[in-house]
Amino acid sequence: MALNKILSGSCIIGQSGGPTAVINASSYGAIRGALDAACITQVYGAAHGIKGVLDDKLYIMDEEDPYELELLRNTPSSELGSCRYKMKDPDVDDTDYRRILEIFKKYDVRYFFYNGGNDSMDTCNKISKYCQKVGYDCRVMGIPKTIDNDLFGTDHCPGYGSAAKYIATSCMEVSKDARVYDTPQITVVEIMGRHAGWLAGAAALATAFGSGPDLVYLPETDFDLERFFSDVEAIYQTNGKVLIAVSEGIHYADGRFVSEAEVSATDGFGHVQLGGLAVKLAEALKQRTGAKVRGIELSLLQRCGAHLASETDLSEAELAGRAAVEAAVSGKTDCMVAFRCARGEGGYRCETELLPLSEVANYEKKVPLEWINEAHNGVTQAFIDYALPLIQGEPERPTEMSLPRYAKLKKVLAK
Amino acid sequence: MALNKILSGSCIIGQSGGPTAVINASSYGAIRGALDAACITQVYGAAHGIKGVLDDKLYIMDEEDPYELELLRNTPSSELGSCRYKMKDPDVDDTDYRRILEIFKKYDVRYFFYNGGNDSMDTCNKISKYCQKVGYDCRVMGIPKTIDNDLFGTDHCPGYGSAAKYIATSCMEVSKDARVYDTPQITVVEIMGRHAGWLAGAAALATAFGSGPDLVYLPETDFDLERFFSDVEAIYQTNGKVLIAVSEGIHYADGRFVSEAEVSATDGFGHVQLGGLAVKLAEALKQRTGAKVRGIELSLLQRCGAHLASETDLSEAELAGRAAVEAAVSGKTDCMVAFRCARGEGGYRCETELLPLSEVANYEKKVPLEWINEAHNGVTQAFIDYALPLIQGEPERPTEMSLPRYAKLKKVLAK
Repeated sequence: MALNKILSGSCIIGQSGGPTAVINASSYGAIRGALDAACITQVYGAAHGIKGVLDDKLYIMDEEDPYELELLRNTPSSELGSCRYKMKDPDVDDTDYRRILEIFKKYDVRYFFYNGGNDSMDTCNKISKYCQKVGYDCRVMGIPKTIDNDLFGTDHCPGYGSAAKYIATSCMEVSKDARVYDTPQITVVEIMGRHAGWLAGAAALATAFGSGPDLVYLPETDFDLERFFSDVEAIYQTNGKVLIAVSEGIHYADGRFVSEAEVSATDGFGHVQLGGLAVKLAEALKQRTGAKVRGIELSLLQRCGAHLASETDLSEAELAGRAAVEAAVSGKTDCMVAFRCARGEGGYRCETELLPLSEVANYEKKVPLEWINEAHNGVTQAFIDYALPLIQGEPERPTEMSLPRYAKLKKVLAK
Repeated sequence: MALNKILSGSCIIGQSGGPTAVINASSYGAIRGALDAACITQVYGAAHGIKGVLDDKLYIMDEEDPYELELLRNTPSSELGSCRYKMKDPDVDDTDYRRILEIFKKYDVRYFFYNGGNDSMDTCNKISKYCQKVGYDCRVMGIPKTIDNDLFGTDHCPGYGSAAKYIATSCMEVSKDARVYDTPQITVVEIMGRHAGWLAGAAALATAFGSGPDLVYLPETDFDLERFFSDVEAIYQTNGKVLIAVSEGIHYADGRFVSEAEVSATDGFGHVQLGGLAVKLAEALKQRTGAKVRGIELSLLQRCGAHLASETDLSEAELAGRAAVEAAVSGKTDCMVAFRCARGEGGYRCETELLPLSEVANYEKKVPLEWINEAHNGVTQAFIDYALPLIQGEPERPTEMSLPRYAKLKKVLAK
């Protein structure tokens, strides 16, 4: 039981890693919660995550207009700026840590909230441990974020539900478009997720609830090109139209990513492609079948598609941010906010819990193999049951002239 | 003044050319109008446009559930199936025309509605003239449709507003995502429109109302690679981030499409690319600047993105379908429905008018040169004023488990 000692001082909130449709909602939850907390004297937003701390570039959140701050809920990407910055082992090189401590002391920072994925939780964990080691009293909390949904210990991650909804909706629309002519056509959609197939699997929601991909390939199993060709050809022979969803991370048994490996010249191309995996596979299928083909990469669109955000995801993202502040204010530290969820007869319920940072940092959660079908070209009902609640609900979307109205922050720099 | 003779018989509605987010709304308008018209005895939908007529594959629309029919309004792509079929000159080869006449007689078809773009209006025109020539009493009406917005004589085309809204919204989201790190990044977004820049120009709506591309290139002017590099580098030097929108149809002064031409080896690649134009330009910019680059192709997503449809576009699309039936029932024939619009002080107003098919078939309407800026890397306020009303309004979107619920038609074949 943590001691509920009142700790007074300022706080820093930082965003890190790849942006999502709802990371700003988490940050809003944390910023709003911190602004409202009596013991938090000043709320700073770090410009570009931990780099903003190192560079002494902190925005004063107290200066922002409350309405504009609230618009962060519906603003995609990381409005404070993000970074991909790997912290060194402090036992090897503690330069960055000493600098961070210097900044923390300069602004009397007693609360540090870091909003990100795997690498960011590693950063958060290292800073937390360093503060403990040097005896600097600062409560450090991780706020999860990643469309990849691969953080360990939490049912799911904020950002995943909205990306999953974007992917499922787009695949449903493409499925309609790709079947419109009475001529043969094969379409390959490439979906993010280098090591985990949570996003690619979401394409199957389209098939389950209307029309979507015939085949879905995840990176959790080895990709076999000949088996892929025969999967596709079996459907192609029957109806002349095939829609395929692939994770960018599919790889051969020897570990080579299909996106990087050369396919043998007889399969259509023997040189390194600049186009992505979708185009590469589509071209190979064109050589095999003679069909008209098209490769579509959902690219950045899938992670910044705020106009298709899931209200469930959005409100949970905000909840995670608020929960981090509440926990820290109540005395907790060195943890990440996680979700514990119930599905089934009683419906979907989600509540937050805290996990020690050291338990979540650097572990990757993959799609369980039993949620992938035996043919390794689709997901099971268990996957659908898992993902479906996460895409539910349409948020109110502030618009101006029917285009999104995003937050406009002043970003006043602290001195 | 057309004679208002009551013509009794059945009708055929066909969809043709590339699908859009709202072509089914036009077809719904025509189908519903025809079902409600006393003089129209039976309503058929042609499977895959004129090919369905030639193949005697007609769906009986009277058999469909009214609720499912109404869902066509929000169902993207061409639900009856589409085709790209070029009709021969009947004076050279009248085989198809004699077959069409045979089918028209078999089903007592006295009304023919064809929903499509330039090529489809050519088909429509030829069939209309043939019926007149052989003295077969059939009222033929074209219903416009094309995301390309290049049909002659009409203020704009159904399908354009929704695609424009998808493009503007996506560019706004990508703009947020592509500027998130404090490291240099250049992003190129490729937009449809082989010969006309209406769609690429719509990307500028994002810039006008929040954040969007810094540079927009349309196919109406010649593309100059060196000028492009200097445009990009000027912005790159200043802020390290550049977002560029290009039409797929940009071409050099000698007419070669940039997407197909080889760029000199010193510019980074000397071999034919499988990846599209965006990747090609992005790679060339990487060679020049050393920046991280990304090419994004909006691909099919921009034409089937019904979840971002413009209500203005959707209701005008339906209106065009209904107007075609009303005009034909009232005695008109051999025309395409067009829009005449007013913008300005009194707000936006749109009404339908009829144009002779022979006047619209085979002409392409391009973006006026005076709506493109002097540097040929953006559009003027006149373009914004033109396009903005067309993207207004959010339609109600029927959903099921937070995913789109599309029409499920029985498609009962006529015998």
